[in-house]
Amino acid sequence: MISVGIVGGTGYTGAELLRILVDHPEVRIQAVTSRGEAGKPVSALFPNLSPRLGLDFIQPDPAGLKNCECVFFAAPNGTAMHMVPELIEAGVKVVDLAADFRIRDAAVWESWYRQAHACPDLLQAAVYGLPELNREQIHSARLVANPGCYPTAVVLGVLPLLESGLPEHAHVIADAKSGVSGAGRNPNVHALFSEAGENFRAYNVGAHRHWPEIKQVLQGVCAADVNLTFTPHLTPMVRGIFATLYVTGTDRSLDLQAVYQERFAGEPFVEVLNHGAMPETKHVRGSNFCRLSVQRPYEGDTVVILSVIDNLVKGAAGQAVQNMNIMFGLDEAVGLMQSGLFP
Amino acid sequence: MISVGIVGGTGYTGAELLRILVDHPEVRIQAVTSRGEAGKPVSALFPNLSPRLGLDFIQPDPAGLKNCECVFFAAPNGTAMHMVPELIEAGVKVVDLAADFRIRDAAVWESWYRQAHACPDLLQAAVYGLPELNREQIHSARLVANPGCYPTAVVLGVLPLLESGLPEHAHVIADAKSGVSGAGRNPNVHALFSEAGENFRAYNVGAHRHWPEIKQVLQGVCAADVNLTFTPHLTPMVRGIFATLYVTGTDRSLDLQAVYQERFAGEPFVEVLNHGAMPETKHVRGSNFCRLSVQRPYEGDTVVILSVIDNLVKGAAGQAVQNMNIMFGLDEAVGLMQSGLFP
Amino acid sequence: MISVGIVGGTGYTGAELLRILVDHPEVRIQAVTSRGEAGKPVSALFPNLSPRLGLDFIQPDPAGLKNCECVFFAAPNGTAMHMVPELIEAGVKVVDLAADFRIRDAAVWESWYRQAHACPDLLQAAVYGLPELNREQIHSARLVANPGCYPTAVVLGVLPLLESGLPEHAHVIADAKSGVSGAGRNPNVHALFSEAGENFRAYNVGAHRHWPEIKQVLQGVCAADVNLTFTPHLTPMVRGIFATLYVTGTDRSLDLQAVYQERFAGEPFVEVLNHGAMPETKHVRGSNFCRLSVQRPYEGDTVVILSVIDNLVKGAAGQAVQNMNIMFGLDEAVGLMQSGLFP
Amino acid sequence: MISVGIVGGTGYTGAELLRILVDHPEVRIQAVTSRGEAGKPVSALFPNLSPRLGLDFIQPDPAGLKNCECVFFAAPNGTAMHMVPELIEAGVKVVDLAADFRIRDAAVWESWYRQAHACPDLLQAAVYGLPELNREQIHSARLVANPGCYPTAVVLGVLPLLESGLPEHAHVIADAKSGVSGAGRNPNVHALFSEAGENFRAYNVGAHRHWPEIKQVLQGVCAADVNLTFTPHLTPMVRGIFATLYVTGTDRSLDLQAVYQERFAGEPFVEVLNHGAMPETKHVRGSNFCRLSVQRPYEGDTVVILSVIDNLVKGAAGQAVQNMNIMFGLDEAVGLMQSGLFP
Repeated sequence: MISVGIVGGTGYTGAELLRILVDHPEVRIQAVTSRGEAGKPVSALFPNLSPRLGLDFIQPDPAGLKNCECVFFAAPNGTAMHMVPELIEAGVKVVDLAADFRIRDAAVWESWYRQAHACPDLLQAAVYGLPELNREQIHSARLVANPGCYPTAVVLGVLPLLESGLPEHAHVIADAKSGVSGAGRNPNVHALFSEAGENFRAYNVGAHRHWPEIKQVLQGVCAADVNLTFTPHLTPMVRGIFATLYVTGTDRSLDLQAVYQERFAGEPFVEVLNHGAMPETKHVRGSNFCRLSVQRPYEGDTVVILSVIDNLVKGAAGQAVQNMNIMFGLDEAVGLMQSGLFP
Repeated sequence: MISVGIVGGTGYTGAELLRILVDHPEVRIQAVTSRGEAGKPVSALFPNLSPRLGLDFIQPDPAGLKNCECVFFAAPNGTAMHMVPELIEAGVKVVDLAADFRIRDAAVWESWYRQAHACPDLLQAAVYGLPELNREQIHSARLVANPGCYPTAVVLGVLPLLESGLPEHAHVIADAKSGVSGAGRNPNVHALFSEAGENFRAYNVGAHRHWPEIKQVLQGVCAADVNLTFTPHLTPMVRGIFATLYVTGTDRSLDLQAVYQERFAGEPFVEVLNHGAMPETKHVRGSNFCRLSVQRPYEGDTVVILSVIDNLVKGAAGQAVQNMNIMFGLDEAVGLMQSGLFP
Repeated sequence: MISVGIVGGTGYTGAELLRILVDHPEVRIQAVTSRGEAGKPVSALFPNLSPRLGLDFIQPDPAGLKNCECVFFAAPNGTAMHMVPELIEAGVKVVDLAADFRIRDAAVWESWYRQAHACPDLLQAAVYGLPELNREQIHSARLVANPGCYPTAVVLGVLPLLESGLPEHAHVIADAKSGVSGAGRNPNVHALFSEAGENFRAYNVGAHRHWPEIKQVLQGVCAADVNLTFTPHLTPMVRGIFATLYVTGTDRSLDLQAVYQERFAGEPFVEVLNHGAMPETKHVRGSNFCRLSVQRPYEGDTVVILSVIDNLVKGAAGQAVQNMNIMFGLDEAVGLMQSGLFP
Repeated sequence: MISVGIVGGTGYTGAELLRILVDHPEVRIQAVTSRGEAGKPVSALFPNLSPRLGLDFIQPDPAGLKNCECVFFAAPNGTAMHMVPELIEAGVKVVDLAADFRIRDAAVWESWYRQAHACPDLLQAAVYGLPELNREQIHSARLVANPGCYPTAVVLGVLPLLESGLPEHAHVIADAKSGVSGAGRNPNVHALFSEAGENFRAYNVGAHRHWPEIKQVLQGVCAADVNLTFTPHLTPMVRGIFATLYVTGTDRSLDLQAVYQERFAGEPFVEVLNHGAMPETKHVRGSNFCRLSVQRPYEGDTVVILSVIDNLVKGAAGQAVQNMNIMFGLDEAVGLMQSGLFP
């Protein structure tokens, strides 16, 4: 049994970590921290978790967390970087679900996140935790930067095509739609039911922090510059990301279906749909699966890939547990094979 | 391992049975029938279920079902009664999720369901499958009538109060609100997103088939006539039932909180909330729990009980599996302890 | 043309007042105040209103408002009572959409609203602005207390029955469901899309401020004590109130349909549905109509009335304009005959 | 007063025509046809329309319709083409809200709509009813083909950019999201609340009938081939279209904001937002406005335009009335200036 701690257990990703880990057969949850809720039962804040959970929130305290074998950070950006060095030093393995260790270049990170990085030297040591791309490095990592929700959906969607070689003047356009839970549990007017319900809108056009993250990963895959446009939208549902991905100027002779199916053969959580089938976010709601379809409409040079995940599972807590499984040498899928909740 | 069959696997309750049973450690799904989809993979119709399920729909055929130890009927009303006698004869245990065996009096059943009953002699043998009321009889039953969704929420809500004695002129008023999945998967205009979304309405006022079912159970508990008013409503969400229950003319000296907590102490799936806490349907979404609160507002003689369940789980498939667990001598909660999906 | 001012134009009722008044043929909007948004164009905050509106928010200032003929208060409770005396003194007619003048007894008001009343002497002068009940007094009023959203739906629903005489031991039970816009535009966790969406819950059970308001009105109608239970719920839609009203112990010989149709004959905004038809909130979305049905299910002594309104229109801004029309001797329906938005 | 007829008044576009026309000061609705509902009051089917409407559905009958000055077809594709020649002959002006007259080339139309065209000779006479593009021809037209909902949002969004000249290798990518009312009022499983709610999906990828329509219009504007990719999606709301439009390879020296504002200056129903403001579908819900923003994110060669309309208003019934206003020489905006319904 791996003893785990969760820092920042009161947001949606923290709650989702709890939902998954409470049923994980190889895990014992040792500590869940919250500055604001310390002393209260976790099941009072999240009654969907059975009272059998029997856990109370505690104050975040590095000393206490050092007794854990694995610590998940589900806290706001800029929290983990202040605590991780001490934990790593103590031999604790860490998965950060926030953005502190996702960008390799400290200057780029600081310009997008508008603060100084507290431990830039750890940026190179951190492994970007997309198992389908970095499984080996994750296995030996002490610090994993869990990918953002949008980057997970986008990168999985274009990975096979980019690995097969991207023409020089190609454009990659990622039109991504997220459920409102992606905005977190902090109250703000735009996330109110009366504002976000029966409404569709784009936000942070040309200014979303997942753009440099996606770009870094794609350029790593291509070993070349990638002309990336990324537009995030909010859609009136709670969970789910739907990424519609366009790659222009592609080689029309490519057997896309074969390329995708081969690339993800054996992957436990990526399912390439048969030709003609289309993914829907509801099919992965509550599950760790990514479902993909690839097509070349109108026989043109533009390829269209559709990629769906649950933003809180494969886009956050589920992938974090998948990373933990790999880091500790467990079966990668243990504790993660729940079906989606449909309807 | 219990080998089970599911008749009528293409509706929402059938899909939910599959979602639960596929992860049940003591069950092997042997057969899932569908007239319309026979030959197709189950995961093609319900992609939320992993392809690892590896099951195809088959034609409903009593001969094949006789090899199962337990058969669930998730088919329309009037289906099970034509197949159950033969299965019971062959030693198969049956849980009917439809209404064929819920009403003890064949004449009453026939007047509400507008057809002749095919095996009225089995009505007395059938056990009404509300474990919190009939656990012992379920344990030895060969045929269990799984309760309706509304009756489950309503009966659990008023049970402790009625067992403590109902004054002569008391009224029981059940104002119940259901998610739209209760209307099933058959397309009809009223269940369209554009009609049911952003809308709230009552339906079948004074004419819902769950009224005689609730009345029968409550009168069994009271051993007296019960003045019951039941109003079902449709609320714009997919899953969940919220029952607001009013009992007038009650004894003001009753310690309601104590009565309820004692009655359900030890029940694995009924949770009586602490005084002041209120249940929400979202806290039981996808789980088999019923959450209850009881209060006497304005210190009057009217008691208000709030009762929530997931209509597809505790209100259908989950309770059916709970009944199977009891019928086969398993731990009642095995395979049913999933947390609700929140948010 | 009546020159009007709106105090507190940034909440949902303020926005709805603007939507209605901008198309009102007899009104000129002279001032819209907001402490926080003063100086900004109204159409920047509410882009659903055409830029042709050409209005900027201004600071609330009694001096400026005194130039208006009619001032609407769409501000939080406890705001109007500090400004109304000066305005009334200056000859301005006032409609308060908040609760400052709804309760006649200052002590009762203070115990429910937890503050001292600033002008208790005006409580008797204020007219409760339900036109279907108090049309004559509204016509000559200088200060109208616009009813709460729940009280409007509940009182219209039981009015004809109560006017026909309520038996001594009758109970009135009001089970009311509101869209989330009723919670206002202030960000709070419970009103977030991810919390309120796909969720149904009750709130303020036994403690909602509309209970004393409804009770006062009903007791005025009956000239007797009324045993009232009122349970408000939140349903996952933006607009609409659905009140399911139960009155027990009624006289079974009453021709309910006739009583209701006669009572509301000639009312421009109350529609009693034909026997068997049922109201839905969506049919009044965006309109000033109240739609009602009345039935006696199971031929019992409990009458069930269903009453629907749009909480922001007949439950707030529309009714306020209806009151203004009456106060100024206009056709009561002018500017208010828009159809509901369906679907 | 123009006497108008509506053929096919029982779908959502028919209902929306009624909602708009009933308040149009220059229109008298003379006939509303429905094969299935003939003889029933219109307000029984659409209770959002006041009973004062006083209209019953009648059987569709060319003889009766010939007495109208203007006939709207809100019927399924392939209906209007059988009745229009006779009406035109009789001097009636026609606006077809379906697709019968949108494609100029009969062979293309027949291949996409899979039926023979009944009056191909009228295809050249019909005017494509996008006022912002074809105002003059609409003014003198006897037959107007009202644009599809997606084409309206897409064409308005890229029109100024394409008129300024499209580079040779540019791609136009239209990622469009529609509310579920776009699927119409016919019951089908995919449009059920339980399927479409809390779900996001694409459909008809590479095979949607609005692709050839958009392509025809854009190529008419450019007088050149346009490399168009169009992906329609369903988003869980009732009304609204949000089109995210990408044009690659553009001239970076273009002052986009100025180009767009100049192009649409004076247009009553197109609003180009200030730099940095973003459109939301909810801001045009129930209104005839199209709101647009244009940006060049990351200073690249890809331009991103966001375009929102209400699919039932500017995307159907509202634009049809706008066309009628133009055809009859009325002020183009008469009867169409309602504010959107927010929230």
